[in-house]
Amino acid sequence: MRSFINVEDIGPLDKALAEAFEIKNDRFKYQHLGKNKTLMMIFFNNSLRTRLSTQKAAMNLGMNVIVLDVNAGAWKLETERGVIMDGDKSEHLLEAIPVMGCYCDLIGVRSFAGLTDREYDYAETVLNQFIKYSGRPVFAMETATVHPLQAFADLITIEEYWRTIENSELRIENYDMPKCGNEANGQGVQGNRNSQLPIHNSQFKRPKVVLTWAPHCRALPQAVPNSFAQWMRAADVDFVITHPEGYELDPKFVGDARVEYDQRKAFEGADFIYAKNWSNPGVTNPADYGKITSKDMSWTVDAEHMSWTNNAKFMHCLPVRRGLIVTDDVIEGPNSIVIPEAANREISCSVVLKRMLEAL
Amino acid sequence: MRSFINVEDIGPLDKALAEAFEIKNDRFKYQHLGKNKTLMMIFFNNSLRTRLSTQKAAMNLGMNVIVLDVNAGAWKLETERGVIMDGDKSEHLLEAIPVMGCYCDLIGVRSFAGLTDREYDYAETVLNQFIKYSGRPVFAMETATVHPLQAFADLITIEEYWRTIENSELRIENYDMPKCGNEANGQGVQGNRNSQLPIHNSQFKRPKVVLTWAPHCRALPQAVPNSFAQWMRAADVDFVITHPEGYELDPKFVGDARVEYDQRKAFEGADFIYAKNWSNPGVTNPADYGKITSKDMSWTVDAEHMSWTNNAKFMHCLPVRRGLIVTDDVIEGPNSIVIPEAANREISCSVVLKRMLEAL
Amino acid sequence: MRSFINVEDIGPLDKALAEAFEIKNDRFKYQHLGKNKTLMMIFFNNSLRTRLSTQKAAMNLGMNVIVLDVNAGAWKLETERGVIMDGDKSEHLLEAIPVMGCYCDLIGVRSFAGLTDREYDYAETVLNQFIKYSGRPVFAMETATVHPLQAFADLITIEEYWRTIENSELRIENYDMPKCGNEANGQGVQGNRNSQLPIHNSQFKRPKVVLTWAPHCRALPQAVPNSFAQWMRAADVDFVITHPEGYELDPKFVGDARVEYDQRKAFEGADFIYAKNWSNPGVTNPADYGKITSKDMSWTVDAEHMSWTNNAKFMHCLPVRRGLIVTDDVIEGPNSIVIPEAANREISCSVVLKRMLEAL
Repeated sequence: MRSFINVEDIGPLDKALAEAFEIKNDRFKYQHLGKNKTLMMIFFNNSLRTRLSTQKAAMNLGMNVIVLDVNAGAWKLETERGVIMDGDKSEHLLEAIPVMGCYCDLIGVRSFAGLTDREYDYAETVLNQFIKYSGRPVFAMETATVHPLQAFADLITIEEYWRTIENSELRIENYDMPKCGNEANGQGVQGNRNSQLPIHNSQFKRPKVVLTWAPHCRALPQAVPNSFAQWMRAADVDFVITHPEGYELDPKFVGDARVEYDQRKAFEGADFIYAKNWSNPGVTNPADYGKITSKDMSWTVDAEHMSWTNNAKFMHCLPVRRGLIVTDDVIEGPNSIVIPEAANREISCSVVLKRMLEAL
Repeated sequence: MRSFINVEDIGPLDKALAEAFEIKNDRFKYQHLGKNKTLMMIFFNNSLRTRLSTQKAAMNLGMNVIVLDVNAGAWKLETERGVIMDGDKSEHLLEAIPVMGCYCDLIGVRSFAGLTDREYDYAETVLNQFIKYSGRPVFAMETATVHPLQAFADLITIEEYWRTIENSELRIENYDMPKCGNEANGQGVQGNRNSQLPIHNSQFKRPKVVLTWAPHCRALPQAVPNSFAQWMRAADVDFVITHPEGYELDPKFVGDARVEYDQRKAFEGADFIYAKNWSNPGVTNPADYGKITSKDMSWTVDAEHMSWTNNAKFMHCLPVRRGLIVTDDVIEGPNSIVIPEAANREISCSVVLKRMLEAL
Repeated sequence: MRSFINVEDIGPLDKALAEAFEIKNDRFKYQHLGKNKTLMMIFFNNSLRTRLSTQKAAMNLGMNVIVLDVNAGAWKLETERGVIMDGDKSEHLLEAIPVMGCYCDLIGVRSFAGLTDREYDYAETVLNQFIKYSGRPVFAMETATVHPLQAFADLITIEEYWRTIENSELRIENYDMPKCGNEANGQGVQGNRNSQLPIHNSQFKRPKVVLTWAPHCRALPQAVPNSFAQWMRAADVDFVITHPEGYELDPKFVGDARVEYDQRKAFEGADFIYAKNWSNPGVTNPADYGKITSKDMSWTVDAEHMSWTNNAKFMHCLPVRRGLIVTDDVIEGPNSIVIPEAANREISCSVVLKRMLEAL
């Protein structure tokens, strides 16, 4: 695997999932692969989960890790040619990026959307410059339009919970659970150590997975819903997206996924509710790109919303603003799986790094 | 050992000291214990000694280390429930802390006292949230009211110097000394490589150890004197505390320790002087909590003060403000052991991490 | 090797170069040397290449690495004695530096010139304090007046390219090249994997190497040209320095090197052009120290400048301001070797750390 940006990069999802559970069962199994290999993590934006889980995954694989925090203000890169660089940009990306590539074997890049220039953001300008000029395999640690490590972790989490819901013999209580997360609110349940479990297959019914927009006080990127939509379309699930009119996600990611503007209808029969805010993607009205065009608080996921579902699990990529995206009782309730979902970030990243190391 | 906060957590002190000298003799002896284990160090406040010595101790034990600097301004955690999080707090601690626990095996937390709300500080709110919600063993890297890694290092240092003072056959000059610190001022002497030394016992007289308040220009927390008092009470020493009236430390830490308001009387016959400033603990007058109610420069430890003692060693946890806490001649003099004391931070932390790893 | 500051510290250059090519051929050959050894990297100033390449080199050698970013504003060290430290300086260097030495085996220091007090800068006050008080071997990661890791990497690069230019049998195209850098512009060529290559010797003619000043919008230190001059004088090359009158470098570094104020004359017949800006060194006029006394844009290295040379390779330590130091076409052209030059920072540092580890 030369790069990890889109769902196609990981190949067949059943194989990727099998590998994920194998690694979850024995996190250090592929430790030899990373010997004398260096991961460089480049952050143009802040990070908690991605920073920690990616470091952990790299260390699981025996890699060395170098973390580079690029304060966008302190280190502005010139991108134009023919410019006299006498301003605040002290280095040209045509030098900076190849140099970073010199000292490592793999590169992870975090670079959020600016949310002002749709074309620039959706061209994934920064990410593509790293792919073009670094000379190294590159993976997205949330970039302008995608967050595939999150979407893969989400898929792992859905698979993990769904097969234990559907097959009583595989009930999650029967496994030896790693202790992790807020056990006080029931979220300690987060996985299993049995790599022999069958991957989700035809013997189970397909889960209904709903991606729902929810209100937020700040303009957020579309990277998470974009990737989630892309991955769910590729997965063996019944996928529905619901959001206020005007918040249509980019067709590149949504494809022919079902969009239901009536949130209640979307929730009916759902097995998994995936809540997320995003700012206006500017698909229907380019002038709205990156703006907050709805603050409709009726979209906040509360107990009543959850009562419309088929006893659905509640998911969110975190961080989450309570009272806007979701109410306390729902996120702390027994059906909330946000902590195990976050824990699976280590697993999705371990699979991705393993694949990239194998392809070096 | 599930957590490391108070002196009781380390068990019998003679055993802990024996382990400390064993590790000082062979720092990498327990390197196998940390294989594939990850320490997460979370800093809500700045750190030099603790940051460096804890990383070093973890690496001695073969652990992986992840350092997370939480700029308190940039990442404010919501702690209340039932709140609509539309302000500057982007994440609730009920999600953030369990997530951090997902990616590591042990957690160290640095979080200073705010010095405005005594009840909040002395409840160790932040530390206890990590203990309650992270799902991982937690140790204090200086929190609101305690700094046990420092106090344990202090005890190791006292033991190390005392037995060589008392027993000429064990004189420190006879040992193969690691080169460390400012040898120019005689502080190069900092320990021994002979793990067979007898632990301080009944054959020696008990050293007189004096904790003395000294003036400072800024309001400082009580964590260091609190833990030092707690550990000295548990140790086999003659312990005296001296400070201006009104600066009484919390009874929880001081217990029935002797308090002497006359600094000169306290210093008489002392074998170790441990200087430290702290702001008013608000014990006698709650309204004074966290304030500077004395700047009495007669408390600064100078050569005359030291002349009252039994040729005492001078100790301080560092950083130290010269001219306020202590004069140049005393801290640079042959009886100053502040550098070996700092060096023992690596040793105390190695013992603590070893114990925590063994208990996983 | 106890410290690494000046060219003499590395010993005979042919041996150092042989070791560099040996390590480039097998970067992990000396990995056993760094086992249980800790490098502390202390940054008083920002760094990209040095930060990354030094970490990589240390990891190549199996070392543990601790990175300490000292924000000069946040952590001011008192250097005077007899002072009452009631201002903004919370720690005295006489404590801070020995403590840092306690937790590591080797120390790298980055500390730029202030460019206001020539005597202070050229006394290498900060670096020498670390040498004197840390109790550890110290190396410069660019200090007030030197950048020897850069100069050594420059020498390696010149040697590498020169022998392949001069000896067609050793042409660089014949080697198995590591992929690195911006291959799109031909800079992918950056070294060879054949450690049996003869080191530059009498069978080749000596290359003409020209250090040329070029204009810049900000006042920059003299560390890079100082060290480059020092190393080129020690190397087997025909070395010429060119700059506007008044920009004479310090005699301590330049010695009897040829200075040619006519840039065109200097460039004639050159095999390597090494461009760099530096602020006025204050040699001819002390009042000019650290100032910009020329912004003469005719010194910018463009295609016409390069046409005066013997098809010279273009070098720069990076970061570089295009349009001031060099034009786009030159730095992106086939003769630019700035990326392979940066890649050799890992190699020069690996040799230095290897030598320091061997001498522990």
